[in-house]
Amino acid sequence: MTELTITEVGMRDGLQMESVFVPTNQKIQIGLGLIDAGLQRIEATSFVSPKAVPQLADATEVISELRGRGATLAALVPNPRGAERALEAGVDELVMFISASETHNRHNVNRSVAESLENIAPMAQAVADSKRSLRAAVSTAFGCPWQGNVSAEEVARVIEGFAAQGVGAVTLGDTTGMATPPIVRHLCAKLAEWFPEVELTLHFHNTRGIGLVNVIAGLEAGITRYESALGGLGGCPFAKGASGNICTEDLVYLAAEMGLETGLDLRRLINLAERMQEILGHELSGQVMKAGPRLPVA
Amino acid sequence: MTELTITEVGMRDGLQMESVFVPTNQKIQIGLGLIDAGLQRIEATSFVSPKAVPQLADATEVISELRGRGATLAALVPNPRGAERALEAGVDELVMFISASETHNRHNVNRSVAESLENIAPMAQAVADSKRSLRAAVSTAFGCPWQGNVSAEEVARVIEGFAAQGVGAVTLGDTTGMATPPIVRHLCAKLAEWFPEVELTLHFHNTRGIGLVNVIAGLEAGITRYESALGGLGGCPFAKGASGNICTEDLVYLAAEMGLETGLDLRRLINLAERMQEILGHELSGQVMKAGPRLPVA
Repeated sequence: MTELTITEVGMRDGLQMESVFVPTNQKIQIGLGLIDAGLQRIEATSFVSPKAVPQLADATEVISELRGRGATLAALVPNPRGAERALEAGVDELVMFISASETHNRHNVNRSVAESLENIAPMAQAVADSKRSLRAAVSTAFGCPWQGNVSAEEVARVIEGFAAQGVGAVTLGDTTGMATPPIVRHLCAKLAEWFPEVELTLHFHNTRGIGLVNVIAGLEAGITRYESALGGLGGCPFAKGASGNICTEDLVYLAAEMGLETGLDLRRLINLAERMQEILGHELSGQVMKAGPRLPVA
Repeated sequence: MTELTITEVGMRDGLQMESVFVPTNQKIQIGLGLIDAGLQRIEATSFVSPKAVPQLADATEVISELRGRGATLAALVPNPRGAERALEAGVDELVMFISASETHNRHNVNRSVAESLENIAPMAQAVADSKRSLRAAVSTAFGCPWQGNVSAEEVARVIEGFAAQGVGAVTLGDTTGMATPPIVRHLCAKLAEWFPEVELTLHFHNTRGIGLVNVIAGLEAGITRYESALGGLGGCPFAKGASGNICTEDLVYLAAEMGLETGLDLRRLINLAERMQEILGHELSGQVMKAGPRLPVA
């Protein structure tokens, strides 16, 4: 049976989009609930400036409380200061992001892609010295809201830069929901050809309603690693009211129906998504949390 | 280039789920807008009892005003009285529904499937006499909220009953959103084998977030005819807050990105979905209407 590896990113990619600060103890409850539902990989927070993203100002506390509970804890780190904080806090996997699109990278971090790539080396060294893992996240890998299409070559340039520092775990981020089945198939095929040693993870958003359709295209391309968010948390800074990340429960439901093993407990995930909805005080976009699975689950 | 045939069902399957009555002139505006956007097939209303479904009490007026504007107008007819009214009003295609699930059929129309099948003959005769078309809609073809799974044999029994009356246009309805890719593939393959002469149309709901994933499975099974609703209108009587029909604009966007021809104007559809949202006064579940297509369209 094919196994899917799902990384839950709602606590990072979801909560950073919310207008409220979710109290630290509630974040920890959600994190523990995720582990209880079977998640072995959680992107739990981001070590960004608390001024820039106050929603995740408690990154250190969240990691401290969730450490040693059986899940690999990942966190986004935008710069050496963030990496230092993440290492101190005990993050297992540091995630560094660079955009494949030159324009998006400039808008996002005010640097060229080349300059961002130069910054990898010292961070990669610090992570290696600490015996932690480093993951490359390629933003706008399937399209850029400013530039439009992004070529496989542009994505490859970022992966090469990371690979040169020994980073072989790569997430392709569909930052603003521009992936389509043909783009997914083309990009995955090219990258598998150019970087056979790289382990690809796909991170789709449901901005245009086809997030799970893109997962199907990814599966056809042989990719079994995906990122998703409880309840479909998140949103899109470029499209008011648009959906966020693909929804973990919906993905787990689909996987189960397709005979793919995730190791996750759908009932617990649904309960947790309902709890998250209560915490946030607004409806989430997840569908299975409203309708339940098609048949009762054991 | 593969062509998709899309039947817009929002005016019927969508509006019947709304708590308000949309004024007749606004329905007609929407209908004309759909034709303007390129739709050649519109399921515009249902000739049910106005007491049972007051939202569609203006079925005759809606059909009269939209007739002769270039689109084939379909309407649901639950019984001989409805069929008579539909023929008088000038409907091009009458849609009769019978559930594949015995339990659902009893709950829905208080008759066994066998009894419902017996009722076809006089209606089929009346439709043939009037030189109109008759379509069979098989409800709960992919699963039943009471019974659970529905077998291909149960679906085939309904199709056989219609085929015996000369009805060769069949819509498989995923009434409560229980279709999954394996079920779609299995059912379509079986029916293609058993009824090679029947023209299949698939009608999916996005109740569990995988409506467009099921379209992909349908395409792989060689089906090019789909039903969808503007803005993802509709809902599920069995799941409060759940999504309704698959969304026309999202489907058209996906089709265009996959190189499939629909003949529909995405920009006009988005404008129309926004107009529908204004008319109804609540948010619709369509995604592309919020985010727009991934690249500007001409």
